[in-house]
Amino acid sequence: MKIVAVRVTPIAIKDPALLNAAGVHEPFGLRSIIEVVGANGQVGLGETYGDAPVLDLLNRTRDSLVGLSAFDLNGLWARVLSAAPQTNTGHVEMELAPGSLGSNLVNSAFSAFEVAFLDLQARTLGIPLVELLGGAVRDKVAYSAYLFYKWDASVDPEYAPDPYGEAVNPQQIVAQAKQMIDQYGFESIKLKAGVFDPEEEADAILALKAAFPKHQLRIDPNSNWTMATSLRVAEKLAGCLEYYEDPTPTLEGMAELHKATGLPLATNMVVTNWAELKRSIELNSVQILLSDHHYWGGLRATQALARTCQAFGLGLSMHSNSHLGISLMAMTHLAASVQHLSYACDTHYPWQSDEILLGGKVPITGGCVHLTDKPGLGVELDRDKLAELHEAYQHCRIRTRNDVAQMRCFRPDWTQVKPRF
Amino acid sequence: MKIVAVRVTPIAIKDPALLNAAGVHEPFGLRSIIEVVGANGQVGLGETYGDAPVLDLLNRTRDSLVGLSAFDLNGLWARVLSAAPQTNTGHVEMELAPGSLGSNLVNSAFSAFEVAFLDLQARTLGIPLVELLGGAVRDKVAYSAYLFYKWDASVDPEYAPDPYGEAVNPQQIVAQAKQMIDQYGFESIKLKAGVFDPEEEADAILALKAAFPKHQLRIDPNSNWTMATSLRVAEKLAGCLEYYEDPTPTLEGMAELHKATGLPLATNMVVTNWAELKRSIELNSVQILLSDHHYWGGLRATQALARTCQAFGLGLSMHSNSHLGISLMAMTHLAASVQHLSYACDTHYPWQSDEILLGGKVPITGGCVHLTDKPGLGVELDRDKLAELHEAYQHCRIRTRNDVAQMRCFRPDWTQVKPRF
Repeated sequence: MKIVAVRVTPIAIKDPALLNAAGVHEPFGLRSIIEVVGANGQVGLGETYGDAPVLDLLNRTRDSLVGLSAFDLNGLWARVLSAAPQTNTGHVEMELAPGSLGSNLVNSAFSAFEVAFLDLQARTLGIPLVELLGGAVRDKVAYSAYLFYKWDASVDPEYAPDPYGEAVNPQQIVAQAKQMIDQYGFESIKLKAGVFDPEEEADAILALKAAFPKHQLRIDPNSNWTMATSLRVAEKLAGCLEYYEDPTPTLEGMAELHKATGLPLATNMVVTNWAELKRSIELNSVQILLSDHHYWGGLRATQALARTCQAFGLGLSMHSNSHLGISLMAMTHLAASVQHLSYACDTHYPWQSDEILLGGKVPITGGCVHLTDKPGLGVELDRDKLAELHEAYQHCRIRTRNDVAQMRCFRPDWTQVKPRF
Repeated sequence: MKIVAVRVTPIAIKDPALLNAAGVHEPFGLRSIIEVVGANGQVGLGETYGDAPVLDLLNRTRDSLVGLSAFDLNGLWARVLSAAPQTNTGHVEMELAPGSLGSNLVNSAFSAFEVAFLDLQARTLGIPLVELLGGAVRDKVAYSAYLFYKWDASVDPEYAPDPYGEAVNPQQIVAQAKQMIDQYGFESIKLKAGVFDPEEEADAILALKAAFPKHQLRIDPNSNWTMATSLRVAEKLAGCLEYYEDPTPTLEGMAELHKATGLPLATNMVVTNWAELKRSIELNSVQILLSDHHYWGGLRATQALARTCQAFGLGLSMHSNSHLGISLMAMTHLAASVQHLSYACDTHYPWQSDEILLGGKVPITGGCVHLTDKPGLGVELDRDKLAELHEAYQHCRIRTRNDVAQMRCFRPDWTQVKPRF
């Protein structure tokens, strides 16, 4: 089944002032929406980063896909590769968004199209994407409550404030968790840390533990802690954590920390591709891989990654950057097809107020996204909303995510330091 | 698309008196032919071992697949698993056929059905299997000339002799190579060794090198040599080998041999599953994996394996046991879809005179099997031939391959010793 047209639409979505190790989220996050149109009139959807380097490669690849079979993923790979820049230098890199790393550029662009190709295959067959991926081993996929330290919207009032308000101390973090869990029913909680004094952040985990004694807890300072800090917090949180995510930088650092603490370490920062996975296995750096089809090269590659993790005794879950429902559904269909999925997946989805799907946001109930028997990803584009968010893209000043620069708008002396604490 | 019927037909195929480390091939090899019938009337084909343990699991799984979607490979896995014996003890194990190892039983049965499921998917879509597997990165797949020491047919005249005659010395091996290469055009040569004095077998390689200076050469004594012998032959064959296949037993032995010689070592014996692969990577035991979808868990699993091999810097090719054209075409479509395929694949196919396909044997020209644009595997069953070979199965005394017992028919004092030389 031949592809007759490919559309790539960059959009800007409202994003709250979420704090992290690098700085603070800008008021808009960028995404690219992919539409791959088959000769049968069916349209496969994809969603990925909207940052300039990825968008540029998507656009340079786009037209070369016309005429290709929607099944020809190897042909897709060859076309992305031939459209890619010879070197990856010159690209702004945002470590907290591994898809923006130059080394992952080809995988990121490939993945965006691959999801759309697979969605088109499944829609052509009239089956849910998960069925094409090998069938559902679960009919719903669990996600975690993804808590952030954040400012309230008054700091940059470009649009109406988000419903969560400020969170800069343990009490406010617990309140945020309550609000999010009341609405979505999550049964595990992740705190994005690396922002404030590690002692205070550890106190937030202890406060969460007291408030949600049955929930699984995780803390993720985005490699922003020294070994000494990581060890101190590990001791303070003994028995509290489901896993300890990216406390400290480098594969060597993580290996040392695991050896010292015995804690299961998770990562989406020190293992973002196969070469790093190989090295991590050699060093026993991490015990849980937070995969992400957006930069691991798509859904089939992530299925292969899952088999490898299983073989090497590594746990598997999923990482997330700010995203909309197409990405959420791709993650959900993928996760439902993978036997070896060990934990509730991460998602930023509750933080996003915008959506480009008919019917609005994808429901999350009981902490889970439920699969339906609709064909493909099971969602349809709302073209008016897509046009509206594309216009937002055209008017927003952002072209590549930069949380450091955004923080400098408020703290001119802010610098990127790692580890900061 | 629902499955409405599943047929499993054991067959016996004539097999020449090929010699190996264990003994000699029996006059019949056993295969199971799988037919998976979809609600649309299309039939997906599979082929695997016909040995009793595998056949038994195929038969015990068969009926539970009716009603399943042809896309539901996870559902297939669950059904094979639930039909499998709780323990794998009691099965006769033939190390030269890794699919007969108890530890690979579930993977072997799953794989046979998986190929048929995928074939049915592709036929339903009206596309070649390779396209379903991600598209062809090559339009033909190279195989190697697979030479055997052998007796002529007079030793066990159950049927008309094969066209190759006796080969028990270097001159006869060179003649066999000439005959096979004249007919099929192979550009690489593998000698099955481990049968005679290793010095003589190395002489056969030197004679092949002289007769075919441009061909790639390999020798495979099936782990039948000690470390000392392996080292001595390595020295004698310096510069002659594309790779050195399974000279000596165990992952530890192979690691030691590689360290001592620097030669690239290949295996289908010490790495037959993911756990062994993990251990091999830790030890750097082998540098080339001879995969085989029949016991690695199917085509998708082998694609995952290929990605892992690529990530870990391992070369990849394919192992073969005696087989017919369905297996050959499954190997060919798979190999054509895998970017990371480093060498010409092994096949026993030239040794088989029987076939169950309409039009007879699959052509091998220029050393390659060429892909066509026919749907699925691109081959159709000749039901008369299938019935004939099923009858041969019913009349033959063999139920589980046993090259040791067969050798004892001629040499009553024969025992299985490893390593023998």
